[in-house]
Amino acid sequence: MAEGAFIRDVASFEGREVEIRGWVYNSRSSGRIHFLILRDGTGFMQAVAVQGQLPDRAFQAAGFAPQEAAVVARGLVRADRRAPGGYELELRDLEVLQGSPGYPLTLKEHGVEFLMDHRHLWIRSPRQHALLRVRAELIAACRDFLDSDGFTLVDAPILTPAAAEGTTTLFEIRYFDRSAYLTQSGQLYNEAAAMAFGKVYCYGPTFRAEKSKTRRHLIEFWMIEPEMAYCDLEQCLEVEERMVSAVVARVVERRRPELAVLGRDVSKLEKIRPPFPRISYDEAVEMLQRAGHSIKWGDDFGAPDESYISQQFDLPVFVLRYPAACKAFYMQPDPARPEVVLGADLLAPEGYGEIIGGGQRIHDLELLQARIREHGLNEANYGWYLDLRRYGSVPHSGFGLGIERTLAWMAGLEHIREAIPFPRLLHRIYP
Amino acid sequence: MAEGAFIRDVASFEGREVEIRGWVYNSRSSGRIHFLILRDGTGFMQAVAVQGQLPDRAFQAAGFAPQEAAVVARGLVRADRRAPGGYELELRDLEVLQGSPGYPLTLKEHGVEFLMDHRHLWIRSPRQHALLRVRAELIAACRDFLDSDGFTLVDAPILTPAAAEGTTTLFEIRYFDRSAYLTQSGQLYNEAAAMAFGKVYCYGPTFRAEKSKTRRHLIEFWMIEPEMAYCDLEQCLEVEERMVSAVVARVVERRRPELAVLGRDVSKLEKIRPPFPRISYDEAVEMLQRAGHSIKWGDDFGAPDESYISQQFDLPVFVLRYPAACKAFYMQPDPARPEVVLGADLLAPEGYGEIIGGGQRIHDLELLQARIREHGLNEANYGWYLDLRRYGSVPHSGFGLGIERTLAWMAGLEHIREAIPFPRLLHRIYP
Repeated sequence: MAEGAFIRDVASFEGREVEIRGWVYNSRSSGRIHFLILRDGTGFMQAVAVQGQLPDRAFQAAGFAPQEAAVVARGLVRADRRAPGGYELELRDLEVLQGSPGYPLTLKEHGVEFLMDHRHLWIRSPRQHALLRVRAELIAACRDFLDSDGFTLVDAPILTPAAAEGTTTLFEIRYFDRSAYLTQSGQLYNEAAAMAFGKVYCYGPTFRAEKSKTRRHLIEFWMIEPEMAYCDLEQCLEVEERMVSAVVARVVERRRPELAVLGRDVSKLEKIRPPFPRISYDEAVEMLQRAGHSIKWGDDFGAPDESYISQQFDLPVFVLRYPAACKAFYMQPDPARPEVVLGADLLAPEGYGEIIGGGQRIHDLELLQARIREHGLNEANYGWYLDLRRYGSVPHSGFGLGIERTLAWMAGLEHIREAIPFPRLLHRIYP
Repeated sequence: MAEGAFIRDVASFEGREVEIRGWVYNSRSSGRIHFLILRDGTGFMQAVAVQGQLPDRAFQAAGFAPQEAAVVARGLVRADRRAPGGYELELRDLEVLQGSPGYPLTLKEHGVEFLMDHRHLWIRSPRQHALLRVRAELIAACRDFLDSDGFTLVDAPILTPAAAEGTTTLFEIRYFDRSAYLTQSGQLYNEAAAMAFGKVYCYGPTFRAEKSKTRRHLIEFWMIEPEMAYCDLEQCLEVEERMVSAVVARVVERRRPELAVLGRDVSKLEKIRPPFPRISYDEAVEMLQRAGHSIKWGDDFGAPDESYISQQFDLPVFVLRYPAACKAFYMQPDPARPEVVLGADLLAPEGYGEIIGGGQRIHDLELLQARIREHGLNEANYGWYLDLRRYGSVPHSGFGLGIERTLAWMAGLEHIREAIPFPRLLHRIYP
């Protein structure tokens, strides 16, 4: 009886008969020989049906099995240098569990909207398959880095009674007899957790009801947010560059074949090592003005601005000390220059732009209250958050890394919509 | 200069001077000696201020520092068998960063509503601190088990265009120009992912707008959901019992001190090993009827029913083959007896009840369409889900493990509200 095997493990079954349970990715035929490319979720592999080497019923099934037919294939694993993975399967039997024709995603080119409408099937294709495996590795790498660096996972809530960031991009929801909002960031809750655990992080989905259609925006995206008590901006940036470097190194090490499928130039990722270059917001504005961008001190950067800055460096670059007016109410002003904050964005190279925003939070009660008023927010909504400044308040810092933007950079994507299994965009919530 | 240290590591600093950055958990004084219990997020430790051994300013600060004062403490690490962790800190200096009196959570007993209103501070207390560390370990253990067992993480979306389970407990949300819903389960999307990757899981928050106030219900809870292609009920149960056993063993191994703080009888957890006992739904009904429960064949179990069944076993127990009418539309009917489904719930012992629901999914297109109609659902909402039965459909199974219910059992909690950092309940969305 043939042993069950996964395609990723076939090398260890050379010369033996195995059973592969999977699907037909592609096929061609020369009459007496049928070639099938099988996939089983762990990889892709060529199977060869030679008339006479398997029952006639099975040989004919191999000739007729359409794209995406579900098949149980039994055969001999043979090393073959010409085969894509180095091995092929000499079929001894083939059972078609289900083989309806008409699979919508043929191997031709399809338009983006058509592919997005069939995202539930598109994720079977080699490129999307490779990409989502890189995504899983990236997420595991982030979590493992933090877990082994003394951080405790403390999940922030998704349904919140008030806004964390601005109020203009909130999704409102009816929560029984009152209103609630989908979280835009777990940060405020992270700050409570950091005062209990010292070093914490949350990881979960976040939501921004932004009416923008860009290559860099998703309505629903995942963010990993570390927060540290007794931590200033400088110490925070050190954690950021260590984490990004470690995560990139692990993904390159463990997902090299997938990055090759994606056509990623891995040499650019192999250069990512701390320390990362740092420029001030002031310097960034000058750099942009010299390049002809119409920006003046005090403006927030747009996507083309971030792209330009990030193209000037081979490494991710920190942009420090943005104007307080551009940033959220909780950012700590620089004591030496209160019009800027002790915060930094990290811009990924090759034009990808912001993947991290972070910095030091205000730890003084009265200053925080003043900022809440200046931002037109209702102090009553921040009672518990102000408590953190009433009892045992200490300097603390943290940051949020956007998973999809980081993946888009690491995988070399043109558009962020492929960086999440089921993207939610301005005009898309299907499938 | 004193080296920075975390309390969890003090054993390796014996005889040396360290700097601990933390908070005052408790204090007492005998005039010339002040005793402080410090916490720094990694542990608790006694610090002793003896007049003359530190500057007068610091000695007096030690005497006045209120509960939850933020302090930087420098001192000598000394082994002391009487001290709770085996070490104490002989203070050489103490700086109070912020020390406002009036911390609301004194060390007296407080009512549950008061504690829940101060959840952002309550998580600093030893019991909640221990519990949330067990939670983080449990989550990491689940993920590591699946990652090392060949599963790929594929995140399911939170915002969905249609209901996965029943339609009565859905949170509706305005998604630009249309309606959307908060996910109740990632399963339907998991099924698409399983056909692409073979073995997958999703992990994220799920939502049920249930108007019930029980010890076992949260409005927002986290679920880890594995799904496997080419997998029948029997194989699914085998994964479930292996996973639960591995996760329990790891938490007991790595979080023994925290379980001791919680007063958990660990010997009961040490018995958790596969195989788990199995009874049919029919047998469970008879068992309940013999015990005087007013239940008849066809009824779903209530919490008291599940509690009773689970108290009859030392191990988690599978209850198999529920009536199809009790369960979701996608459950595979037993071919030998179509009025029951090829599904099982896993009930945790000691009266905790359901922690997992799962089973085999319908893979036949026409049967699934019939079930959608029978459940009064709109087939138009399931177009992509039906595609999975049109192209390469194979037998597949999966399950969902509720993190908070599993934690409540492992930690021996009376109420699920403590099993999540910031619980959302029928009448609670603050803090």
